[in-house]
Amino acid sequence: MNFTKDNEKSGINANEMIKDLQDLIKVPSVSARKQNLIECAKMVMKIMEKTGIKSELLYLIDENGNKLDVPPIVYGEILSKKNPDAKTLLFYNHYDVQPEDPVGLWKYPPFDGVIENNYIFGRGASDDKGELITRINAVESFLKEDGDIPCNVKFIVEGEEEIGSRHIEQYLSKFQKKFRCDGIIWEFGYIDENDRPIISLGMKGLLYVELIAHGPSRDVHSSLAVLIENPAWKLIKLLDTLQDKNGKILIKNWYDDINALSEEELNTISNEYFNEESFKKEYGITQFIDNKTGINIKKALVGNPSCNIAGLISGYTGDGAKTIIPSTAMAKIDFRLVPNMNPQKQFQLLKNHLVENGYSNDIELKMIHGEAAARTSLNDPFVKKVEDSAKEIYDNKIVKTISSPGTGPMHAFNKILNVPSVSIGSTHVFSKIHSPNEYARIDLLIKTTKCIKKIMEKMAI
Amino acid sequence: MNFTKDNEKSGINANEMIKDLQDLIKVPSVSARKQNLIECAKMVMKIMEKTGIKSELLYLIDENGNKLDVPPIVYGEILSKKNPDAKTLLFYNHYDVQPEDPVGLWKYPPFDGVIENNYIFGRGASDDKGELITRINAVESFLKEDGDIPCNVKFIVEGEEEIGSRHIEQYLSKFQKKFRCDGIIWEFGYIDENDRPIISLGMKGLLYVELIAHGPSRDVHSSLAVLIENPAWKLIKLLDTLQDKNGKILIKNWYDDINALSEEELNTISNEYFNEESFKKEYGITQFIDNKTGINIKKALVGNPSCNIAGLISGYTGDGAKTIIPSTAMAKIDFRLVPNMNPQKQFQLLKNHLVENGYSNDIELKMIHGEAAARTSLNDPFVKKVEDSAKEIYDNKIVKTISSPGTGPMHAFNKILNVPSVSIGSTHVFSKIHSPNEYARIDLLIKTTKCIKKIMEKMAI
Repeated sequence: MNFTKDNEKSGINANEMIKDLQDLIKVPSVSARKQNLIECAKMVMKIMEKTGIKSELLYLIDENGNKLDVPPIVYGEILSKKNPDAKTLLFYNHYDVQPEDPVGLWKYPPFDGVIENNYIFGRGASDDKGELITRINAVESFLKEDGDIPCNVKFIVEGEEEIGSRHIEQYLSKFQKKFRCDGIIWEFGYIDENDRPIISLGMKGLLYVELIAHGPSRDVHSSLAVLIENPAWKLIKLLDTLQDKNGKILIKNWYDDINALSEEELNTISNEYFNEESFKKEYGITQFIDNKTGINIKKALVGNPSCNIAGLISGYTGDGAKTIIPSTAMAKIDFRLVPNMNPQKQFQLLKNHLVENGYSNDIELKMIHGEAAARTSLNDPFVKKVEDSAKEIYDNKIVKTISSPGTGPMHAFNKILNVPSVSIGSTHVFSKIHSPNEYARIDLLIKTTKCIKKIMEKMAI
Repeated sequence: MNFTKDNEKSGINANEMIKDLQDLIKVPSVSARKQNLIECAKMVMKIMEKTGIKSELLYLIDENGNKLDVPPIVYGEILSKKNPDAKTLLFYNHYDVQPEDPVGLWKYPPFDGVIENNYIFGRGASDDKGELITRINAVESFLKEDGDIPCNVKFIVEGEEEIGSRHIEQYLSKFQKKFRCDGIIWEFGYIDENDRPIISLGMKGLLYVELIAHGPSRDVHSSLAVLIENPAWKLIKLLDTLQDKNGKILIKNWYDDINALSEEELNTISNEYFNEESFKKEYGITQFIDNKTGINIKKALVGNPSCNIAGLISGYTGDGAKTIIPSTAMAKIDFRLVPNMNPQKQFQLLKNHLVENGYSNDIELKMIHGEAAARTSLNDPFVKKVEDSAKEIYDNKIVKTISSPGTGPMHAFNKILNVPSVSIGSTHVFSKIHSPNEYARIDLLIKTTKCIKKIMEKMAI
């Protein structure tokens, strides 16, 4: 297929963009397993250099001057020659991806980047290698057209986003001057089921923990279950105290720091579009938690904290029957947080909950990571630039939301660089990110590239 | 080491017995995975034939005359020449073993049969290849001494004990005449921590089920946890309704069919020995369920039903963080049953519980297998023969119990063959059966062989 042909007029070389994206997908840069991270960072640099973007790897250094064992940031920079006083746009993206399991459910191998008509399949196709490539391609398109770009551009491409951007705050602090900018285009942006871009001004926070219940010193024959307490029972009893069946978190003071939504925010929420039936169909469900409908669904997505079991394991899980009391039982839980909730403080509340309910001796609690939520003001002028650009490309059909339901280190960026962040991108809402058969739609990659170009033009002044 | 030397007087060839046991351990006959079962059955036959026991493989046949895909029974038989009217002793054993995982916790490879001083390590070293070899060796010892045995002997060695003896009842019914006998020596018997054999007259029953909660049609990004119900939460809420924290099962009518213990049974229980401190130390626990002490511990082991989580799995369980709503969550549960509880009926009670608590649409319930409990009467004359034999070998230091805490198909044997069953054997209570580092103590294998010989002598009349 020739994707470039249809886009010749806009100067976008779609064929090369797709080829670059395939090359990126082929590097299985799974940060949860510390796999192929440097390799992928170097691949990003190579693509930037080829395009004409100056790039380097940034590292963190300990007090003795040694590199920390932390994935580097790929930093890219290109300034406008004709317009040195233009504003600076910063693209934040990441080169790491989620684990690919369960592998058996993929239609194509997860790291092959197979193209089928308008779709490119693979882990990272959308999240976030697809998004990254649209930003790079927008720059390339200007350079190809007239050897210059309308505004200054910086890239921060990190390698730990999928494991909670553990060091981004350190990187932002260390390289604060280098990263100076006037607005940030966030690493992803959704396209809704009617092909409208969702301009999102915020992100939820996250507290990710592991709970490990300890039982007998080894797996024991279950005939002794009349005497020996099973750690899986202990874990279940604890978990059942965390949340009621309607999704209300039962940990004392959990909701204390949350501010109510403002009238302006509620207005924006009520203008959002959400198709309940197509959502249910897409995910194979028959109802929403707490039987939510209408505005309550939209409010929940942008403004509700949640407590989710991401993983559970204990004992024998293979085929057939094994009769044991397991030695341990483990749960992985992610709590989504909203603005004003502090991950450290919420962790302490959870810890108190364990103590108060008598589990602190038997159940180990580990904080895997924490990130605060962030929201850019609806009235920020940068928001209008992005909004106007999107309207031009998508014929006024856009959606604006005060927050994505997802999490990212936006709070650290907004706070340390003291600028607004806005999400806009190419990720179709049903593109199966974090799931088997993740894909990117090639038409949306191209449209997003065009939209990024518009934003760059508006940053010239 | 030469184990035979010390036992020359009793005619027991311990070296050959250990060699045979090693050969059996080396065949990883894991029934849960249908692995190497025929190979192990043939190895048992070979050892029997070498000893002088006539052996054959028995199969089940469907209505068209085709063999069922079910592990065969190794049937062995040898009659007394000098004493054709002697009683017939039947040895019930099994050639299959539990899965070996977690493999990483084994000191030696689980299927090598490594000998270290008085210990032989390996999956099946005690349960049940070690026990089987003592029965065969007892016969061999008589044959070596005077070319004959004092009573008639039959062997039933099955291949599905560790997955609930799914077809033993069919085998027993089909070959009822062939298996005719006067008493059964059960497949295992424990030796307590003071090296006294525990003569056990019963077994608990078992109901093994899987509960599978279904959520979205695939794993979904957990930012949607504010809307999409997580199947792990559903499973946890259900599980938490099954049992209270003291081990009391909360399913309606669960205990209805149980008879109270008789005065004679209570007497026997109160004479049992149980060292609370050494038990706690062995299993690394600090207290018993429901803070049980004294006679209540012993009553629980022989007479309490239980509800145990043998396995739990859902979502992402690897290293690091993955933020998903899992598509399914699964629990494996084994319920131990006591006499008079019918596995099918108890399964129906569990099913009713799901319906009554509103889980029957979302949570799938599968019965993996069921076996009723059994008890041989304290007054049966066969019990006295076994008891007297053990007293002779162990200098009167024996323990008698009305039931093992474990499960086996004793109910089917007692009912179909209409004879009593008694457990006596060589398995040290802390020999880690079903766990990593399962072992057999060689001195106990030899002592048990001697004890079996005594029982055979008493069956001559």
